[in-house]
Amino acid sequence: MMPIMPTAITDSCELDEASQRRVVQYCLECGAVAIGHFGYASEFHKVSDPQRRRLVELIVDEVAGRVPVFIGATAPAVHTAVQYAREAEDLGADIIMATLPYVDVPDQDGAFAYYAALADATALPIIIQDAGHSSSILTADLLLRMFDEIDNVCYVKAEGKNFLVKMAALIDASGGALPVIGGAGGKHMIHMLRLGVPAFMTGTEAVDLHAAVVRAYLDGNEEEAARLYYETVLPYLVFYMDHSAQLLKEMLHRRGVLDCPKVIPPSGAPPMTDVERREFEWVLSRIGLG
Amino acid sequence: MMPIMPTAITDSCELDEASQRRVVQYCLECGAVAIGHFGYASEFHKVSDPQRRRLVELIVDEVAGRVPVFIGATAPAVHTAVQYAREAEDLGADIIMATLPYVDVPDQDGAFAYYAALADATALPIIIQDAGHSSSILTADLLLRMFDEIDNVCYVKAEGKNFLVKMAALIDASGGALPVIGGAGGKHMIHMLRLGVPAFMTGTEAVDLHAAVVRAYLDGNEEEAARLYYETVLPYLVFYMDHSAQLLKEMLHRRGVLDCPKVIPPSGAPPMTDVERREFEWVLSRIGLG
Amino acid sequence: MMPIMPTAITDSCELDEASQRRVVQYCLECGAVAIGHFGYASEFHKVSDPQRRRLVELIVDEVAGRVPVFIGATAPAVHTAVQYAREAEDLGADIIMATLPYVDVPDQDGAFAYYAALADATALPIIIQDAGHSSSILTADLLLRMFDEIDNVCYVKAEGKNFLVKMAALIDASGGALPVIGGAGGKHMIHMLRLGVPAFMTGTEAVDLHAAVVRAYLDGNEEEAARLYYETVLPYLVFYMDHSAQLLKEMLHRRGVLDCPKVIPPSGAPPMTDVERREFEWVLSRIGLG
Amino acid sequence: MMPIMPTAITDSCELDEASQRRVVQYCLECGAVAIGHFGYASEFHKVSDPQRRRLVELIVDEVAGRVPVFIGATAPAVHTAVQYAREAEDLGADIIMATLPYVDVPDQDGAFAYYAALADATALPIIIQDAGHSSSILTADLLLRMFDEIDNVCYVKAEGKNFLVKMAALIDASGGALPVIGGAGGKHMIHMLRLGVPAFMTGTEAVDLHAAVVRAYLDGNEEEAARLYYETVLPYLVFYMDHSAQLLKEMLHRRGVLDCPKVIPPSGAPPMTDVERREFEWVLSRIGLG
Repeated sequence: MMPIMPTAITDSCELDEASQRRVVQYCLECGAVAIGHFGYASEFHKVSDPQRRRLVELIVDEVAGRVPVFIGATAPAVHTAVQYAREAEDLGADIIMATLPYVDVPDQDGAFAYYAALADATALPIIIQDAGHSSSILTADLLLRMFDEIDNVCYVKAEGKNFLVKMAALIDASGGALPVIGGAGGKHMIHMLRLGVPAFMTGTEAVDLHAAVVRAYLDGNEEEAARLYYETVLPYLVFYMDHSAQLLKEMLHRRGVLDCPKVIPPSGAPPMTDVERREFEWVLSRIGLG
Repeated sequence: MMPIMPTAITDSCELDEASQRRVVQYCLECGAVAIGHFGYASEFHKVSDPQRRRLVELIVDEVAGRVPVFIGATAPAVHTAVQYAREAEDLGADIIMATLPYVDVPDQDGAFAYYAALADATALPIIIQDAGHSSSILTADLLLRMFDEIDNVCYVKAEGKNFLVKMAALIDASGGALPVIGGAGGKHMIHMLRLGVPAFMTGTEAVDLHAAVVRAYLDGNEEEAARLYYETVLPYLVFYMDHSAQLLKEMLHRRGVLDCPKVIPPSGAPPMTDVERREFEWVLSRIGLG
Repeated sequence: MMPIMPTAITDSCELDEASQRRVVQYCLECGAVAIGHFGYASEFHKVSDPQRRRLVELIVDEVAGRVPVFIGATAPAVHTAVQYAREAEDLGADIIMATLPYVDVPDQDGAFAYYAALADATALPIIIQDAGHSSSILTADLLLRMFDEIDNVCYVKAEGKNFLVKMAALIDASGGALPVIGGAGGKHMIHMLRLGVPAFMTGTEAVDLHAAVVRAYLDGNEEEAARLYYETVLPYLVFYMDHSAQLLKEMLHRRGVLDCPKVIPPSGAPPMTDVERREFEWVLSRIGLG
Repeated sequence: MMPIMPTAITDSCELDEASQRRVVQYCLECGAVAIGHFGYASEFHKVSDPQRRRLVELIVDEVAGRVPVFIGATAPAVHTAVQYAREAEDLGADIIMATLPYVDVPDQDGAFAYYAALADATALPIIIQDAGHSSSILTADLLLRMFDEIDNVCYVKAEGKNFLVKMAALIDASGGALPVIGGAGGKHMIHMLRLGVPAFMTGTEAVDLHAAVVRAYLDGNEEEAARLYYETVLPYLVFYMDHSAQLLKEMLHRRGVLDCPKVIPPSGAPPMTDVERREFEWVLSRIGLG
């Protein structure tokens, strides 16, 4: 697992460094092979620049070299993404991750130029992070071309529309040379494993459950992996997909990892209703997270 | 279960009456308490008027009074929907179902006028069918008002955005008087059961599996219902949701119910890819439908 | 001008044949070189099959061979569109027009198969009608390929996203051989004329104004064409684009052409507000239609 | 006129301070009554934080108190918008402007909380800027309530869907007390004037033309205002609406105001095609900007 952490804040939107360090520890305890920040699960777009800088320092410090740290550099402008990548490298990050700018979304030429600019700016390996807004632009062909032609582009996290098909195309066309990382919050995880995807970048709301599925599969026990996936992951995911920002933080708060479960305002989704809450609690208690 | 049937066609888009009769029999064997046609699963918008008339005759004939027959009257214009409702009544249908017109979608006043016009045109009870395009217009408040003020409006099938929440609101506000029918292809079925929804209108691709979940729950065995739902329904649904038109017909073809698995052209979705196919087959074989 | 007529109805949605004949006469008086029905302006999707048949008969009768009659065959299914095309040919239409099915929208292969099926079903020339929902599928390349490979495909009405660019591509690539018809309700009319587009298919709300612009341009008076366009067409179009279904019928009602200005229910747009109404009236009085 | 300026950059995305000062001078020469920055026309989301700070300083310096300076504080998070507002006040801005956060868009309660937080953070008057993404949330009712209940909320710039109707509702319901500012790039400008809207916040691509329309109208010459609007503004606007980011900078570059016409990468729209370019040039030469 390569979990992406949430940003731990206080009720007044200050960083909560103690909680953030506990998230790092929780990921390491669940067997994370890399730890990341500034994905969507991190609410990266709602973090101020000074907070960003401090978070990178703190995570690098807490991880202390035990696993690689990957840092998202996504920004609405190419030049600001480049600055984020440089800053992360300066502060000791090991890998840069970036999805396409999300306000003005570039076309394919613009996407290539963006990753080329990032690669020029840093010596670190780069994860291209596909997402909902990028999935029609970052086609398998373009991803393979960038993997071939831009030196630092080393990994692809495929998400968004038809990600399973895109993953298969990337693996096939590269003869397995392009390392594909799974995501999509865990959707189709059992199928990604069967496709040969070994690494998963999901939120941290249930790294233990996700890790158990992956471990069973990699141990050769497909049946057990499927059973765990269908009995413990899929049931909560159908709620999580509608309320991920809120539930990620709540689930970590209930485990004692995060002090404050608040989403950084504004929240883009209405809070879970009482009906959903009751059903979600029932699911959590069935899967041992109640 | 109140399954909605597909339209059985030949390769040249003629009706395949023998297959259509087998679909009716398959539904009855699975314990259907009502059988319907001209929902989305029926590709109702791609059936010609003469085909529509013949299908109603044939279904009424094949069901032969064993269970009620409900017929969709949805059309792009109010006056054509009214004609479909009258025709269905004349041909012996028991219940009319209708979602909002789907090309020019009316506002709330237009929606009320539409169901009032249908109610004026027929003496049959009416199921208001909520769907993706109608869910922001057919609010719980409007649905309750129509249930109160329009005599024939007797049932609501809630679907579309936040349907679980809307269902709970309808049940609560009506004190259980408004019969709410579950749908959404089976999504959240276990939660709808726990909410008190006893009837389900899904496609016919796996009426047996859906029926087993419902039966277990109504027999008081919530744990068994949940297990069946998580192990046999949810795993195939995650594929079915992306390819329902194609898979509905294929799954019935493989059971020997439909001779021809073809979707009426044009198909609105690309065919399933090889990768998805392989994974879907693996799921089917795991759940006993391989 | 090749105007597309509205469907004249009574307040109870019966056909109003006298009004419909007056629309034909109004178009002929404005110098129409062809007259059509069953475009979006005709509310074709809200006309019943018997009404459709009667409308084609009546229009063919009223036009009486003075100009060609083109009839839209667009339908949600390929086989029903084919039936509409055959019926129109049987009833004396001169040209078939069709845009892509609009509920399940086909991909490029499906689009080709659809026009090929229409061409197989009729000996009449076919106008491919591009529209908002089809514009990303009916690329210039595909349109040119269909013009080359499907015998009856004779004209393209380019509309939807970037239609000016698509038109120029069609004219350039075909060396002017593919006759391109302008539409878009009159948007960019002066630019389409400068591009070499000689024929326009717009609604009938102001055929006289549109015709005056085209006549001035074709008479070599670009400056007068531009002046007429900017002073008499563009000012009302900015309102018309938001309320075309309502205003088309109202403007014809005020000219005494249509008895009943009602849109066939349901209307897909809220009625014009008082503020817009007041401003629209001010525009109409400035351009001589008050 | 209350023009919103573009951000003047060099080819390598550094600030071009000399050009930026020329934009200020150009606005003042055109009779601007206020000058603003960090609207959409400023590409505010693609400006780094140090660039933002420097831009505010420089604009305040160049305006030198001749007219009020309004500064946009819009940001994806409430706490970062608050910081931008405070910074602008510290640096000498006169008015704060903000539209809703645009990544996670808040609901109505969140919108109220956002403007209340901004009002708490600054003593400056606030312009609520409505836009496409906010227009269904910032209803006339909510805008009026915020004008009543939040002290610093002093102006509304209504844009987005049905802005003409919303403006009329705001003016009527407040008895004219709520100052409404026009925008929408100049769409419906003549109608906004007739509605009683005296102030306009548009881009700076043609402040002179916009100002001439407004001046004629306020001088009591409605006919001249309409003529200028229809002959000089509307003809270029139909192109400008599709390519505003590119054309704003190009038009200022051609006037000698901006040295570099480049949009800050990535551009969210494909560049204008040759066909559009040719027609746009023809329009510019007709309206005296060629």
